[in-house]
Amino acid sequence: MRLDLSYDGSAYRGFARNPGVPTVGGELEERLGALCGEPVELTCAGRTDAGVHARRQVVTFDAPADRIDLDRWVRSLNKQGGGRVAVVAAGVVPDHFDARFSATWRRYRYFVRNRPAPDPFRSHLSWWVPEPLDHAAMEAAAPAFVGRHDFAAFCRRAHRADGTPLPLEREVLDTGWADEGEELRFEIRARAFCHQMVRSIVGTLVDVGRGRIPADAIADVIASGDRSRAGQLAPPHGLVLWDVGYS
Amino acid sequence: MRLDLSYDGSAYRGFARNPGVPTVGGELEERLGALCGEPVELTCAGRTDAGVHARRQVVTFDAPADRIDLDRWVRSLNKQGGGRVAVVAAGVVPDHFDARFSATWRRYRYFVRNRPAPDPFRSHLSWWVPEPLDHAAMEAAAPAFVGRHDFAAFCRRAHRADGTPLPLEREVLDTGWADEGEELRFEIRARAFCHQMVRSIVGTLVDVGRGRIPADAIADVIASGDRSRAGQLAPPHGLVLWDVGYS
Repeated sequence: MRLDLSYDGSAYRGFARNPGVPTVGGELEERLGALCGEPVELTCAGRTDAGVHARRQVVTFDAPADRIDLDRWVRSLNKQGGGRVAVVAAGVVPDHFDARFSATWRRYRYFVRNRPAPDPFRSHLSWWVPEPLDHAAMEAAAPAFVGRHDFAAFCRRAHRADGTPLPLEREVLDTGWADEGEELRFEIRARAFCHQMVRSIVGTLVDVGRGRIPADAIADVIASGDRSRAGQLAPPHGLVLWDVGYS
Repeated sequence: MRLDLSYDGSAYRGFARNPGVPTVGGELEERLGALCGEPVELTCAGRTDAGVHARRQVVTFDAPADRIDLDRWVRSLNKQGGGRVAVVAAGVVPDHFDARFSATWRRYRYFVRNRPAPDPFRSHLSWWVPEPLDHAAMEAAAPAFVGRHDFAAFCRRAHRADGTPLPLEREVLDTGWADEGEELRFEIRARAFCHQMVRSIVGTLVDVGRGRIPADAIADVIASGDRSRAGQLAPPHGLVLWDVGYS
């Protein structure tokens, strides 16, 4: 089965199940387990971190065919989510379809409020930066991330069980800033992302906007593979998994 | 001094200071006290309850003239509010101006999401009612609240220190529903409100939408003064103090 989810990540410690703490996936596995009458293991398109939101997250799991009742399941899951997790689509998919491995790209958006005063109604959904930022410099710097690069300077290093580091080469398809009036919106689409990559890229671009990093230095920072040369890590609450593409 | 505030009430136990629990007014009095170098007591236009928001709340207080530094105070208060409380305007007002007693009306809005699935990004700002509601009946019932009435059926009874009940007669200036696409928006303006009045009116109108109370029964319910004849109390998180009028 496939479910498309939307959620406010504020109250969760991320997506992936983590015993003892509330996670989007952990709570959903519990509820689906009760509906299926057997333990359920979810695969997701993007493992969002604590505080990160999703406009469209896709998950797949195996369910016993004779128990599937789509309408009832969606109603029940929406009710149990308390309004913070919504099932926006549900369906039965072919066996070979996998939320993670069948995805050909992921799109994230990041919202920055660059105004002297905050907007309390968006405070958990956008990063408030009161100091004036050089938007033109941030726009000029964004295209340098496009293409296939080793993103070691922009990711948390991760290792396999045997201690060898996981490869951090990723292909970014497009990036860009848009001025949404009250907020700046950064969008980035890639085949896949490594851990903390979007937040590290946004934090670096905001540091470009603050004049701490020159707009034309991004290619060098990427090539260096040196995380200390990248900018700050942007906070999680401005980040939204916006969409996922399947061929 | 007068401050106009906007806040997300989700994380607060209301506006009024209440030792040991976080309140919008309590935290603000602390911060203003530090800026003024002396204790500060706030007067507000509308004492919002726990979980209720404000797009525009007005407060007044006395401050030592030689310490007032508007720009710095606003920057400092916005920063300390962590993005959840914003100072949207600040100024020095004549001595006779009082946020509460100079106000000639208050306007509240209440947001209801009447869709099968919730919207996680509005879950703390609107009341999700998945069952279909009869919007026409809710609209037909709303005007019955306009005018000067005793709102005993729609308010929590309150008493003076000597035990005599406080009068619950109030004058409602206008009411109405608007369809905002994803949400229904109720608006009500009155010279003043009594405790839980807007939430009780909205809950009753939603019960009209559910067919539990006839649309033409509202005048009778008001006249009865009997709280058991009104509908449910709508949850606080859909309610926003929208604006305050001064002559």
